[in-house]
Amino acid sequence: MIPPDHPRYRSLVIRERLARCAREGVVALEGLTAHGRAEAFDYLIGERSTASAREAARVAAALVYQARHPVLSVNGNTAALAAAECALFQEVTGCDIEVNLFHRTEERITRITRILEDEGATVLKGTPERCIPLQHDRALCLPHGIGSADLVLVPLEDGDRCEALREMGRTVVTIDLNPLSRTARKASLTVVDELTRALPLIVEAYRGMSPAEADTLVSGYDNTYLLKAAIAEIVRELSRALD
Amino acid sequence: MIPPDHPRYRSLVIRERLARCAREGVVALEGLTAHGRAEAFDYLIGERSTASAREAARVAAALVYQARHPVLSVNGNTAALAAAECALFQEVTGCDIEVNLFHRTEERITRITRILEDEGATVLKGTPERCIPLQHDRALCLPHGIGSADLVLVPLEDGDRCEALREMGRTVVTIDLNPLSRTARKASLTVVDELTRALPLIVEAYRGMSPAEADTLVSGYDNTYLLKAAIAEIVRELSRALD
Repeated sequence: MIPPDHPRYRSLVIRERLARCAREGVVALEGLTAHGRAEAFDYLIGERSTASAREAARVAAALVYQARHPVLSVNGNTAALAAAECALFQEVTGCDIEVNLFHRTEERITRITRILEDEGATVLKGTPERCIPLQHDRALCLPHGIGSADLVLVPLEDGDRCEALREMGRTVVTIDLNPLSRTARKASLTVVDELTRALPLIVEAYRGMSPAEADTLVSGYDNTYLLKAAIAEIVRELSRALD
Repeated sequence: MIPPDHPRYRSLVIRERLARCAREGVVALEGLTAHGRAEAFDYLIGERSTASAREAARVAAALVYQARHPVLSVNGNTAALAAAECALFQEVTGCDIEVNLFHRTEERITRITRILEDEGATVLKGTPERCIPLQHDRALCLPHGIGSADLVLVPLEDGDRCEALREMGRTVVTIDLNPLSRTARKASLTVVDELTRALPLIVEAYRGMSPAEADTLVSGYDNTYLLKAAIAEIVRELSRALD
């Protein structure tokens, strides 16, 4: 039991939940390390949604708003951390949800699907095909899901697939706490924020979106600028420790 | 298999080794998350020993040089990452090595001891007692080890124990990649560097140490200054991404 007055209480509770999900096979062991990296970057932005993250979330909402066939790609970490937020995102935006895993087994797909469904999400099913030119199992997608999506929202993504999807001409929106990562730099748009904070921000922006506002946001954004703003926030946060 | 030309090859190989050690019970699942946090900070200092880390390593060597009874405290992550470096450190400095775990089981103690012994280290044994005022199992130490040490070298430490040891008047030297962590701030001295780089640096400095040099280093250092220098290095590294 973690004492609720521990200075890192929330962080420790989430860490324990992920460890439990790893024991149950939902989260890959490598996913725990990935979560640790995310924790470090979240710490550096002060564990809050920064101004640039809020702006990026509005652009993300606009991109999803304009997409013909948006698909939310869910992996083990995303399901463990934010299944309810994914379900709400689907309810509001009407997007498809597909489970896509680096460490893919049928058992993990089934478990992750169940976690999402328990929160009310509808998860695409079918026989996956090698839709993306990659060596590993993240190439496997559903032809009626990511295979035919014009926009893929990929929280906690690996750089390889992000790059491959971009080369296929897809719009890739990622949620990644590391503004320097390959994923962050290769994506069409990166929301540098923690997942359970970012998804509700995108949902909120989507709810109030108009066609005109979506046009303005999509034509006016610059991902490199947003990433630099995120880096500048970290520098500001760190510089306070130098005073 | 990770392709050797992958941009993050070394990092991925170490991550896989830790995942394997977690499957074998050597590394706790929470240890994988901790490693991820360390990876993020290592990334931010450019995955090299900075000037301030080299200076801190020399001070660490001087503190160990002057100690009456230095003990290296080893946990699962330390054994998985740097068992050979720990054995070399012991060979050169003559320190004791004790296994001390947050998630303590006899089986984990035995496995970690074996990993260290396989690299040639001598590991203290005996019946642990509650030597440190802490609620959790890190309180358990050997009376002839950490219990009577004047200096404890604790790589990858948690903040609670660091603080408790300091309050008991012990010199605590830590190796911690996060210069903002409680451990880093509470320790007598923090080497902000990756473990397999830091331990050899301390060994090298120890080898060339004289009593006079040790005196000068120990009387002249300021941990807060060293931590600020480490933070400034991160700020410099990040600022390059803003150009």
